Amino acid sequence: MSRDPADPTDVTDRVPPEAAEDLEDMALREDYALAPEFVAMVIDAADRGDAERLRELLDALHPADIADLMGFLSPDYREEVIAHLDPETMAEFLSELDNEIREEVLEHVPSDALAKALGEMESDDAADVVDDLEADKRAQVLAAMPESERIAIETTLSYQDETAGRLMQREVVAAPQFWTVGQTIDHLRSGRDDLPELFFDVYVVDPAYRPVGAAAVSQLLRAAPATPLAQIMDPVTEIPVDMDQEEVAYIFDKYHLISAPVVESGGRLVGQITVDDIVGVIQEESDEDILALAGVSDAGRDAGVAGIVRSRLPWLVLNLATETVAVSVIGAFQAEIEKLVALAVLMPIVASLGGNAGTQTLAVAVRALAARELNAANAARIILREMAVGVMNGAALAAVMSVAVYLWFHDPGLSLTVALALIINVFVASVAGILAPLALERLGRDPAVSSSIFVTFVTDFMGFLSFLGLAAMILL
Amino acid sequence: MSRDPADPTDVTDRVPPEAAEDLEDMALREDYALAPEFVAMVIDAADRGDAERLRELLDALHPADIADLMGFLSPDYREEVIAHLDPETMAEFLSELDNEIREEVLEHVPSDALAKALGEMESDDAADVVDDLEADKRAQVLAAMPESERIAIETTLSYQDETAGRLMQREVVAAPQFWTVGQTIDHLRSGRDDLPELFFDVYVVDPAYRPVGAAAVSQLLRAAPATPLAQIMDPVTEIPVDMDQEEVAYIFDKYHLISAPVVESGGRLVGQITVDDIVGVIQEESDEDILALAGVSDAGRDAGVAGIVRSRLPWLVLNLATETVAVSVIGAFQAEIEKLVALAVLMPIVASLGGNAGTQTLAVAVRALAARELNAANAARIILREMAVGVMNGAALAAVMSVAVYLWFHDPGLSLTVALALIINVFVASVAGILAPLALERLGRDPAVSSSIFVTFVTDFMGFLSFLGLAAMILL
Repeated sequence: MSRDPADPTDVTDRVPPEAAEDLEDMALREDYALAPEFVAMVIDAADRGDAERLRELLDALHPADIADLMGFLSPDYREEVIAHLDPETMAEFLSELDNEIREEVLEHVPSDALAKALGEMESDDAADVVDDLEADKRAQVLAAMPESERIAIETTLSYQDETAGRLMQREVVAAPQFWTVGQTIDHLRSGRDDLPELFFDVYVVDPAYRPVGAAAVSQLLRAAPATPLAQIMDPVTEIPVDMDQEEVAYIFDKYHLISAPVVESGGRLVGQITVDDIVGVIQEESDEDILALAGVSDAGRDAGVAGIVRSRLPWLVLNLATETVAVSVIGAFQAEIEKLVALAVLMPIVASLGGNAGTQTLAVAVRALAARELNAANAARIILREMAVGVMNGAALAAVMSVAVYLWFHDPGLSLTVALALIINVFVASVAGILAPLALERLGRDPAVSSSIFVTFVTDFMGFLSFLGLAAMILL
Repeated sequence: MSRDPADPTDVTDRVPPEAAEDLEDMALREDYALAPEFVAMVIDAADRGDAERLRELLDALHPADIADLMGFLSPDYREEVIAHLDPETMAEFLSELDNEIREEVLEHVPSDALAKALGEMESDDAADVVDDLEADKRAQVLAAMPESERIAIETTLSYQDETAGRLMQREVVAAPQFWTVGQTIDHLRSGRDDLPELFFDVYVVDPAYRPVGAAAVSQLLRAAPATPLAQIMDPVTEIPVDMDQEEVAYIFDKYHLISAPVVESGGRLVGQITVDDIVGVIQEESDEDILALAGVSDAGRDAGVAGIVRSRLPWLVLNLATETVAVSVIGAFQAEIEKLVALAVLMPIVASLGGNAGTQTLAVAVRALAARELNAANAARIILREMAVGVMNGAALAAVMSVAVYLWFHDPGLSLTVALALIINVFVASVAGILAPLALERLGRDPAVSSSIFVTFVTDFMGFLSFLGLAAMILL
């Protein structure tokens, strides 16, 4: 936005600048999302090249909100904002940034500023950032870091993506079994700087550095200094370094863990995972299920039109192929439809209700599988239950629909055909909706991915076949 | 399973009993779900009335796993298992139990055992359990509890469901601003028993008991005893006691909080929420979205066939109604279909692809709204982007489909009709898929609920109308 200093209608200067607290209040809406008006103020300050105002606005934001702000700005504005962040804010800001935007944002951060910011981060966050760098810049940044930090990052990156090794931070507090509470606190107060900034458990280790228990920090605070650690420690759930992050999240959720030690194959303590990292994983895994059930890959928040088309078109083409097979059933009954065109009117209802019933069963099954509420111990019972539900829902829909069809077409045979086809198709839908995800899970695949395409195909195919086939037998 | 002591083929007694550790290993599968074989062993022990074996098996389980076990047992077996739990295990077990099963389980727990178990729980968990009791039993149990505990539970229950007040525990550690680290630790070691068992932050309060900051427990441990609290404390994000739990979860996720103080309208500290409670909320809210998008209400894990039918049939009937309206479009074109029956074959493809494209857009939009990534600041840009995606996906599908239709029916007019209808319907689907959830959100409604029914209706209606309407103009 350009502005004319001589223009008497330009009142920007006459508005008294808000106090810092007012800005903080304006930044967030009631639901803690960034206020659109505040985003507009940032864009306005950037347009006017008003560096002081921009800094003032950014100071009013938590680093997590600055990360959020990036999602609402185009790349040019992002560059402008980044130039005004100090190293400490930068460190927190980069840890909070969505992976999708981070790659692009990192291009604008000078290598030396980046090396400094990485030094302020926990090892897992730093590794995530380095992972997003282009090869050239990565080499530059790593070269600018102290050796110990560089090795920590490279070790973390050597673990596979989406495993415990990538989630964990290497900084842990460990104490030998024979220490007392007092000795442990003295050790902590000694101020060695490889201790994590924030921690919730002190891991008690044997001479081979294998965790044998954990003492909650709040227990340490309350216990008398002479108490042996072994007396206040609780058993720990060890996380193998190669465990999939979805498993890790399940364990944290199930046992209400705040932190857990990560061990390598020999059982040696190599790091810890804290629950705040898990919150992100749970969100991510649920989002993946929602998108997979809808037949869409995650294109990323910042994707352009081409990226989004790439994330959706393959699924639509697959749907086109299966749908073409399904309608070939209709092709086989063209003669029947010519004789009784009402068949063409009613057949989509049978297919559509089957599709809906199948999707319902599928969503419930995918959720239950993710929560480990459905497994071999109760699969048979759940399948039988779904069959019973399918018959009952089909019968109820058939009752309603046969009356409606009779009122519409005055043809009792047509009513009977629709009713029978609905019962068959809703039953088949329920069976497909439970068996497809169970089979994928058994094969070690993600039950959410591709089950909905399969279920839709089955219900369309069976919907047309049962309705038109019954019509050929009953009516013609 | 009955057994004959004289039967020489009954080898149960000859199998040497496993060591306790072996049982622990057998209890869980590699993915930390309960092993079906272990469930079978529990059922077997219960069938044989072998109390000792049953206790042995239960001792091998974490209370969270005993809670899990309930989901795999029928009510009779549950009663059997519950009789063998000591008060402490019972307390943890009841906190971990799914709401859906808990009501039924609670019927089998004697009132005095329940009162004892409630005394061992945090106030939020205890209130949840009391909330699940029948009125009679609730009165009995509350009467058997000490007054202070009873009042704590009744106060928690006075807050609305799914708000911060219900999530929070009333037990907090608070310290006045002028204390030092040493004074705070002395206070904690004094062993007053209204302190929470596990805590992560000490809230620093002003004379009106309003939180002014929080000192992480790990910082307290590391700081020199003479350090004033005010020097090591960080700013806090206060949670109003009436805030919706979804908001609370968003704030925890965004700012990576471990715990947060809950305040009543005057700003006075009344409790705290810890991140382990939030993990459950996030899971719950995501599950709700998955189910809502599939058009199914949560019937609960333990629901019978009738309960499940009640949770699904209303959505199917609604779908039946909208689908009937959609196919009435076909009814208006019966003459055209009689002339060219290929129309009946191809029209489901146009409707189905529209439905899929709409579902894709909808899932992405619902996810983005939940993550606060989509709001008034970028809605216009996102809508335009979806429109562009709709046109491009529609055009790509039209290209493929027009060739396929030409090869199948050798009718260039029919190819053109399908192609145009696909472009129109996929475009309309994309627009409906983004506008429906945005409109619901704007109206203060849950964007996931009922949007998919609406989108399916629009895409079916428009699919039939565009294809048959164009056919009437172009072909006939």
